[in-house]
Amino acid sequence: MDIRLADRMQGRNPSAIREILKQNADISFSAGNPSAETFPAAELAALAAELFENEYAQALQYGITEGYVPLRELTANRMREKHGIGGLDDDILITSGGQQGLDLAAKCLTNEGDTILCETPSFVGALNCFRSYRLRLVGIPMDEAGMDLDQLEQALRREPNVRFIYTIPTFQNPTGITTSLERRKKLLELARKYNVILLEDSPYFELRYDGEPVPALKCLDTTGHVLFVGSYSKLISPGMRIGYVIGHKDLLTKMVVAKQGQDVHTNLFFQILTARYLAQYDLDAHIQKCVQLYRARRDRMIAALERHLDPRVSFTRPDGGIFIWGQLPEGKSGTELAKHAIKRSLAIVPGAPFATDEADNPGFRLNFSVPDLAQIDRGVAILGDAIQEYIGSVETS
Amino acid sequence: MDIRLADRMQGRNPSAIREILKQNADISFSAGNPSAETFPAAELAALAAELFENEYAQALQYGITEGYVPLRELTANRMREKHGIGGLDDDILITSGGQQGLDLAAKCLTNEGDTILCETPSFVGALNCFRSYRLRLVGIPMDEAGMDLDQLEQALRREPNVRFIYTIPTFQNPTGITTSLERRKKLLELARKYNVILLEDSPYFELRYDGEPVPALKCLDTTGHVLFVGSYSKLISPGMRIGYVIGHKDLLTKMVVAKQGQDVHTNLFFQILTARYLAQYDLDAHIQKCVQLYRARRDRMIAALERHLDPRVSFTRPDGGIFIWGQLPEGKSGTELAKHAIKRSLAIVPGAPFATDEADNPGFRLNFSVPDLAQIDRGVAILGDAIQEYIGSVETS
Repeated sequence: MDIRLADRMQGRNPSAIREILKQNADISFSAGNPSAETFPAAELAALAAELFENEYAQALQYGITEGYVPLRELTANRMREKHGIGGLDDDILITSGGQQGLDLAAKCLTNEGDTILCETPSFVGALNCFRSYRLRLVGIPMDEAGMDLDQLEQALRREPNVRFIYTIPTFQNPTGITTSLERRKKLLELARKYNVILLEDSPYFELRYDGEPVPALKCLDTTGHVLFVGSYSKLISPGMRIGYVIGHKDLLTKMVVAKQGQDVHTNLFFQILTARYLAQYDLDAHIQKCVQLYRARRDRMIAALERHLDPRVSFTRPDGGIFIWGQLPEGKSGTELAKHAIKRSLAIVPGAPFATDEADNPGFRLNFSVPDLAQIDRGVAILGDAIQEYIGSVETS
Repeated sequence: MDIRLADRMQGRNPSAIREILKQNADISFSAGNPSAETFPAAELAALAAELFENEYAQALQYGITEGYVPLRELTANRMREKHGIGGLDDDILITSGGQQGLDLAAKCLTNEGDTILCETPSFVGALNCFRSYRLRLVGIPMDEAGMDLDQLEQALRREPNVRFIYTIPTFQNPTGITTSLERRKKLLELARKYNVILLEDSPYFELRYDGEPVPALKCLDTTGHVLFVGSYSKLISPGMRIGYVIGHKDLLTKMVVAKQGQDVHTNLFFQILTARYLAQYDLDAHIQKCVQLYRARRDRMIAALERHLDPRVSFTRPDGGIFIWGQLPEGKSGTELAKHAIKRSLAIVPGAPFATDEADNPGFRLNFSVPDLAQIDRGVAILGDAIQEYIGSVETS
């Protein structure tokens, strides 16, 4: 038959990153994964054995859409007490990864043709999700302290039907940039002034290697303008797909209805497992182990980049998260560089998929959470060679 | 703040069934659950222990959106070899329960305002999902052999932009009705003639207690018009949320993109667990145990209904599945009956949420997979009393 596809799916193709991940490479800086070394497998195994023994009748049965109540409570309490996230008018919904939180937000807050403002570059999984709702994406450039707020306010004035501002304020994907406290306060002022939601996507914020924590936008929110999307993917395990959203209860009621239609509820066995892990083990101590592992890898990658990269290539020095963003000289192509790198069996992700217009650009993303120290050294040396091959020898230095 | 909701979520409220399930009742005929007695917990526990020991680095990590390859292969092979489902142009995608298959089908095949034809009454979770895409639902009445195909063809001629026909052809939810082979063939002819997709939702078809299996629509499909939605929820465990779709590869490519945006992939640990279960245990033997348990419960419920129900109330006698559908005399209300029943601590689901127009009607749904034999006896006796209380003593008999 001749299949008539929905207009919203015309031209939508598989994510460029996922296609690159399918390529074989000896060394990969292309992932967005946590290191498998950080998975608390022994603890989860013990809890799972107990669940299968004593509570399988509940854990393998249907659950309620809102999520397993103890997991909602433990998560909400931890976020409120430790990070000041969540107020009296807020509720919490367990989602199938942070990704589902983004999808449900788009589903419940936008109509086709509405406008979303976001950082550019930004997380490709979010951008593709928003595109599938036929939203107009308007990218706001960043500097080392976050979005340019003058350009953001101009866009808020200029663009029709702006429904939310999508931001990853802490250790942004793909740049590693953290929005400063001053800009966060100003962001909230703008959200209030123009009555738009701030969709705060924050899967990395607890992975801080240097400096003082910056309060979440949701922590500063007194008027219900912030919808916080969190995740256990980078702290416990991404394969289990456990995320959550914290936001105004009126909005969450609708997100529950939307989630019912999408997947009824999130895998209940792993919801219970996560709740038991939070209750019986020390997540904060576990996070500190992740921090030590990743800090060493970040330090090693930055040292190697300083050693091997052509001085015309710049890169960010993030205080946390799992990504570093590189920039070739103006006019050069991240996509061409990725091709030179993969020829040498090194996988990196070019900047194009992270751009709101998907246009080729001089950016590229490096992940440091997956490769070990030796792979980081070898991979960055290869990257240095690939860059030399692509942009040629230094003209002025 | 004043939250501006998406038009698609205006008036969308939590599912009536889920709200009823939250009520306390001594006996519940309101569930759509399999019996926890059927969960192969010991087998899953052994497989999980092995996975945590030897393969946690993969099982807890991100996976690919299409699904765990051995699960896709084992499922596709089983469905093709045992049930003749799936051809050369077809592919398989693992989904987060059958529900996500329905959602992705609506997302990839329809534009806002398009029309969907479906049985009425039909599965409330599907209807609500389709409503959230702003689709027009046109219900086609059924008799004991399935949809009235004259009315279906009239609707295909009359209604604008019909994108698919949604059907649960075997042991339908909520009626238990199985579409006859003759009507299945005619359904396919109509799908070809009017070039619309048949969305075949079939979570119950392997739970047959009497009679000969009727081939799936997908089994009869030679032209790529059928998208088959399957699930392990009623055969292994619903809490794990593992379903699948089998359909034309061009359509599935788009469904993969849509799924990337929704939840990246389905819980990988349980995808692997399900694959290992299929490879190392005998699912068909397990299904036969489920069949024996449920057959006894169905027989007991039908016998009790014959004993206790006012003769003016009719009910279906399904050959499988987990539901029986009752009908009060014309003009009476399933919702009123459900209120009389819950006063006596018996939960049933009224017909209104299953109707495409959500209007009150004389129908009500009874589940027999969850209550045990004693609960069935007591519950049906209570139902008989509630009916007498509501519709009064027999006038003619």
